[in-house]
Amino acid sequence: MASKQPDRRAFLKRGAALAGGLSLGGVEPALGQTPESGQSVEGQSVEPDDYSTPELIAYGKRSRHVTSVREPVNGRPSPDEFGLVFHIGTPLQEQVGAITPSALHYFGTTRGSIVPEIDPDEHRLMIHGMVDRELIFTMDELKRFPSVTRLHFIECAGNRSSSRHSKIIESHGMTSCAEWTGVLLRTLLEEAGVQDEGTWIVAEGVEEVKGASSLPMAKAMDDILVAYAMNGEPLRPQQGHPLRIVVPGFEGILSVKWLRRIKVVDRFYMTYNDYGHLRQDPDQAALSYQVGPKSVITYPSMGQQLPGTGFYEVRGLAWSGGGVVSRVEVSTDGGQSWMDADFRGTPQRMAHTAFSFNWTWDGSEAVLMSRCTDELGQVQPTRAQMEGGLDNSIQPWRVERDGSVQNGLA
Amino acid sequence: MASKQPDRRAFLKRGAALAGGLSLGGVEPALGQTPESGQSVEGQSVEPDDYSTPELIAYGKRSRHVTSVREPVNGRPSPDEFGLVFHIGTPLQEQVGAITPSALHYFGTTRGSIVPEIDPDEHRLMIHGMVDRELIFTMDELKRFPSVTRLHFIECAGNRSSSRHSKIIESHGMTSCAEWTGVLLRTLLEEAGVQDEGTWIVAEGVEEVKGASSLPMAKAMDDILVAYAMNGEPLRPQQGHPLRIVVPGFEGILSVKWLRRIKVVDRFYMTYNDYGHLRQDPDQAALSYQVGPKSVITYPSMGQQLPGTGFYEVRGLAWSGGGVVSRVEVSTDGGQSWMDADFRGTPQRMAHTAFSFNWTWDGSEAVLMSRCTDELGQVQPTRAQMEGGLDNSIQPWRVERDGSVQNGLA
Repeated sequence: MASKQPDRRAFLKRGAALAGGLSLGGVEPALGQTPESGQSVEGQSVEPDDYSTPELIAYGKRSRHVTSVREPVNGRPSPDEFGLVFHIGTPLQEQVGAITPSALHYFGTTRGSIVPEIDPDEHRLMIHGMVDRELIFTMDELKRFPSVTRLHFIECAGNRSSSRHSKIIESHGMTSCAEWTGVLLRTLLEEAGVQDEGTWIVAEGVEEVKGASSLPMAKAMDDILVAYAMNGEPLRPQQGHPLRIVVPGFEGILSVKWLRRIKVVDRFYMTYNDYGHLRQDPDQAALSYQVGPKSVITYPSMGQQLPGTGFYEVRGLAWSGGGVVSRVEVSTDGGQSWMDADFRGTPQRMAHTAFSFNWTWDGSEAVLMSRCTDELGQVQPTRAQMEGGLDNSIQPWRVERDGSVQNGLA
Repeated sequence: MASKQPDRRAFLKRGAALAGGLSLGGVEPALGQTPESGQSVEGQSVEPDDYSTPELIAYGKRSRHVTSVREPVNGRPSPDEFGLVFHIGTPLQEQVGAITPSALHYFGTTRGSIVPEIDPDEHRLMIHGMVDRELIFTMDELKRFPSVTRLHFIECAGNRSSSRHSKIIESHGMTSCAEWTGVLLRTLLEEAGVQDEGTWIVAEGVEEVKGASSLPMAKAMDDILVAYAMNGEPLRPQQGHPLRIVVPGFEGILSVKWLRRIKVVDRFYMTYNDYGHLRQDPDQAALSYQVGPKSVITYPSMGQQLPGTGFYEVRGLAWSGGGVVSRVEVSTDGGQSWMDADFRGTPQRMAHTAFSFNWTWDGSEAVLMSRCTDELGQVQPTRAQMEGGLDNSIQPWRVERDGSVQNGLA
């Protein structure tokens, strides 16, 4: 049983340690001081930067002091002649909240990061195969259909802790979460009329390697999105502009980008994207699609430095292909004891759920872990408990006595 | 009473009108065609664009085909010597989902769009006045406190339909919604220890005109955020980088940007930001802070063109300073009859709530309206029912027989 985490009120009473040395006796600037004369709140120039140009009034940008970037991470060798698959990871070590900024959303790509350049006015989506009516849609036509807006994570099946030298961007950076808007694939399939023998679909995008995915009809008629927008604006090119599918909770490669065609078929087709299932029959392959339950502590994580003992808010993300995250527990003693973490906001189905845990560090070595349970009752396993398949194991981070944070894998 | 909107299944049965002319008899390309030979799904080049440069692998950008921009909108004259206040509006006519992309978040600014340039490593927040301990925090210290992540809209009090010639960016573009992350102001005030006589706060930012706001202590101890992040990354400069307050549900000018100081005081101080309340006593001024309930149809809206009769998904946003949006109704006959719209996702407190309504246009003139009700039972008024104060009146859009959309104000 998990016990209750330290109370916030207790933290506030102990808070002197945090703010220690910062109290200012008798300093009370008058209200209405101009910035120039503000002696006790320094460094606050009113020099205008270039954020006020007409171009940046039209469309803003981040501060030059904000430098979070994605990085190429452990690409696993591709099984064919195309050479390495590139994986570009999200800097989870700087994650705040549940949404990944579109500019930092992870992406997998092939052959030197090719990103197709597509004019949305010229783009078409065809639905064909075992349907009553084959249909081709323009983007404008797709946008006339009833739409949905949903928060969903997408995680690459290769997202795994491969080494005790891995930072979080390497071990977990191939998962991201966005607010997706589009049409349910079911809506389009119903428009076309799926025939009785149509039990699978193959979704095809404009990409020469990872171009196609086989998906069971039950999933297609459930919650797959044909998405044209993310985080309030059209898809970014690296995320499939102008059209992609989002397959909630399934391994990321199946969420075909630059979508141009959906064919209704009567069996599983082995495509490049299914290479992880080469030795499996179709039913087993379909089962292996679902990722999680999984979670990771984003702060503190490897490479970060705690400035001293005292209070810390441990923060992280949890997610599951099984639906809603129902519980996140945190351990600070390497898994000997567990306590419930708090959710940030209301967990959404197949979406990153941000969690936090109030922790007072006493300066001794500590091993931090998080463990996710989903609405199906599935519990995130330890690395020892893993039984092959996708890696959703518990990630340990070890806080050393000097405040440095290491990967706690053996 | 509102009646039920047309059923989606009914739409799908009628859908032939939408997809009419698009069915392809007998066209069935083989799976695995290369993009070059795909004759029936055209315009889908695999030429790599510059989205795959190292710089854009690090931090992505939108497609060059996506051109939504903010625009300066009806700035109302400022009452002092500083000249016009500039308001930069969000292009709501292209809104999808509930979140405003950070690059398109509206902002109000002064004297030629000055945006302070602040180095977060040098920035400090002071809390002083009627407190037991005056405190100064660095950004790193603030980030160690227990944090919250919440979806909130911010709307300028000047956001109003001033003319029957106004497009939505002019009439409603000064509201936006983001996922904000930061520390509850209450947490910091409890750390400082508010004295009994401290009944108001003055929040001061690094800006020479709109630099300070008076707020009642009850609100400060309730839900005001001291925010350092939006939509998953640090605040953008135009939204107050590195620190601002977010005052949920109150008029936007009170959400002081580039926050450097909070003073606990024993009375309302009249600042520039309170000029809308010059003739009011403090209690009335405080009451007038709260905006909404309000809503607007974003599609179709003025300037857009319906391509023909048939099915449309009418889309819009609703919000209220009173809390959660509990109901949105849509009228297509100028307010004679109303039907319930659908929510997109779960409405959040003081956040934009996206709604949609299935509508089949028969080609006759139609006046579209939306009406928001919030959890307090407050109902958005018509323009005729307005009793002064902030303008939250119902916005009519008139669809002409030729499919063009006009502002329906008299």
